[in-house]
Amino acid sequence: MRQWIQAGRGFSVKSKGYHVAIVGATGAVGTQMLSILEQRQFPIEKLTLLSSARSAGQTLRYNDQDITIQEATPDKFQGVDIALFSAGGSISKKLAPAAVEHGAIVIDNTSAFRMDEGIPLVVPEVNEKDLHDHNGIIANPNCSTIQMVVALEPIRQALGLKKVVVSTYQAVSGAGKNAIDEMKEQSQSILNNEEPKAQILPVKSAERHFPIAFNAVPQIDVFDENGYTFEEMKMINETKKIMHMPELKVAATCVRLPVETGHSESVYIEVEKEGKTVSDIHNLLEKAPGIVLQDSPQDQLYPMPSTAAGKLEVFVGRVRQDLDEKNGYHMWIVSDNLLKGAAWNSVQIAESLIKLELV
Amino acid sequence: MRQWIQAGRGFSVKSKGYHVAIVGATGAVGTQMLSILEQRQFPIEKLTLLSSARSAGQTLRYNDQDITIQEATPDKFQGVDIALFSAGGSISKKLAPAAVEHGAIVIDNTSAFRMDEGIPLVVPEVNEKDLHDHNGIIANPNCSTIQMVVALEPIRQALGLKKVVVSTYQAVSGAGKNAIDEMKEQSQSILNNEEPKAQILPVKSAERHFPIAFNAVPQIDVFDENGYTFEEMKMINETKKIMHMPELKVAATCVRLPVETGHSESVYIEVEKEGKTVSDIHNLLEKAPGIVLQDSPQDQLYPMPSTAAGKLEVFVGRVRQDLDEKNGYHMWIVSDNLLKGAAWNSVQIAESLIKLELV
Repeated sequence: MRQWIQAGRGFSVKSKGYHVAIVGATGAVGTQMLSILEQRQFPIEKLTLLSSARSAGQTLRYNDQDITIQEATPDKFQGVDIALFSAGGSISKKLAPAAVEHGAIVIDNTSAFRMDEGIPLVVPEVNEKDLHDHNGIIANPNCSTIQMVVALEPIRQALGLKKVVVSTYQAVSGAGKNAIDEMKEQSQSILNNEEPKAQILPVKSAERHFPIAFNAVPQIDVFDENGYTFEEMKMINETKKIMHMPELKVAATCVRLPVETGHSESVYIEVEKEGKTVSDIHNLLEKAPGIVLQDSPQDQLYPMPSTAAGKLEVFVGRVRQDLDEKNGYHMWIVSDNLLKGAAWNSVQIAESLIKLELV
Repeated sequence: MRQWIQAGRGFSVKSKGYHVAIVGATGAVGTQMLSILEQRQFPIEKLTLLSSARSAGQTLRYNDQDITIQEATPDKFQGVDIALFSAGGSISKKLAPAAVEHGAIVIDNTSAFRMDEGIPLVVPEVNEKDLHDHNGIIANPNCSTIQMVVALEPIRQALGLKKVVVSTYQAVSGAGKNAIDEMKEQSQSILNNEEPKAQILPVKSAERHFPIAFNAVPQIDVFDENGYTFEEMKMINETKKIMHMPELKVAATCVRLPVETGHSESVYIEVEKEGKTVSDIHNLLEKAPGIVLQDSPQDQLYPMPSTAAGKLEVFVGRVRQDLDEKNGYHMWIVSDNLLKGAAWNSVQIAESLIKLELV
């Protein structure tokens, strides 16, 4: 766990501690937020854990203290400085305005406000400065977007970015704890030569459900009218917003895999400047914040979900020049979708707010 | 199993039956070849099953007969009309010339001769006519190449093909029966909270092995000096050869998944003609041989390994226009890697040879 403290840009503990609230504290991301706040020794004066009525009354451990979870209601944000939301879009829409009214800065991990004008959508390695424009709510991007923009930003800065085509290999934990349980039960059924049962994936509320165990499902979230899924449109629109490049060509195909944690992405890019070598790209990636380069084919060194899970960084490997396009490159990007893809990016935004004296 | 008889272009049984040999009869692909020959009622007068010395003496069932497997040696090809090879490249290199000397036509499922000049590399839906130029050996392409060119050929014919970027999601059965067993054992270990053992994947002879269960491994076959894997270079070079388009831009990233059977591919293409709609592409795919269109997002209808395994066709779905390029399209292609990707394409070549009176 030491790596968590060493990762990122570091931040100095202020004399003042903050009143931090986590909304959705018992969820897959909420528990990771709690864990990261502790590992990062985040300057907390008071911690308020909020959840649905169902989980209220339970306790969670933080810094050797048991903290009782309360039901998330508008009045619970009194005195809160920073509210980390990760309890679904409808809860954010209902409660984030109340939290802001009480004077809190909301860092929202749902898609509720991401594309709203006036709401910064922030990955600190890419657009930390957008935090200056916040009006109380800051949106945390989609997991699959975050790891991609972290890897592409140093290349964009140095070489200019024209086009991105990404195919994702996404883990089940992005769909919550129940989806993980379902995948494990399905796996055991198939190993026992029994019929697997499917009730959650690809989308809980959808009409049809398919086993994810030993399968690959090309649907994450529901379908838009244009044939893309919402997940694919999130990657496309969020990437343009975060990079302030409405003209950037971005296309995405999002696929769910039988992996518990760790999203992978096969990314093809075209840049403005021609003729850069793989080693030029390596140099850019190695110097950039939040990235670990794992790219030595002859040593079979490349990122995988199994080695990225539990770590804060974005891992990049398999960097290759396109064999036809002088400005084309391919790469393989892996990161823990619950950490950099969610909990860690949210806490990192909170650290940036402190550093920039915005809270 | 009825679908096997109905699939493909059909062929009429000649009065003459053929002496058919299978080299590698006990392997993952060899057993499928035997099964397809039976299902297709292939006109067999005599069937010779060959394998390594280790499996010789065992029997395999064909049309209610037990057939004793013999050790594959050069003298076993006497009188053989058609020899289906799937026992690894080194066996093909050693024994295919002997088979040809004895008058057999070799259909080779390994990579031994695929890129050799004068050796046709054939997917009947795409370049059946190349069979006329054979000199005794016909190569069966790589599994991931076959399903892609079947899906792209009708588009190439109607709209012209300029560029292909593919990311694969490949099943473990492509690495043989032992790899499937390993994946299952690893899965059970992980479900039991035990450490998984890895000795086969990604490449048996390589120095390092990684668990494939609940993971995604961006290495299939060994690495070329240019940073691409041999699997990726196979897709690139074979696609150009099969389509007779040395100028075609093709790029591939090949990834192994914890799926038993069924390769999936996320494919981005650019065509010559601009402005075609998704429904134009659907029409082309629906009329083309060997393809089943499964593309109705609102009904959650799209191809998956779980529904494609055991079937002969190539399944295509998730067809979308690129949002930036007027001549760009995305699609999702799935097929059984042991059937259309190997055994069925080989038998299909044999059927084409009969139809074209080349055997």
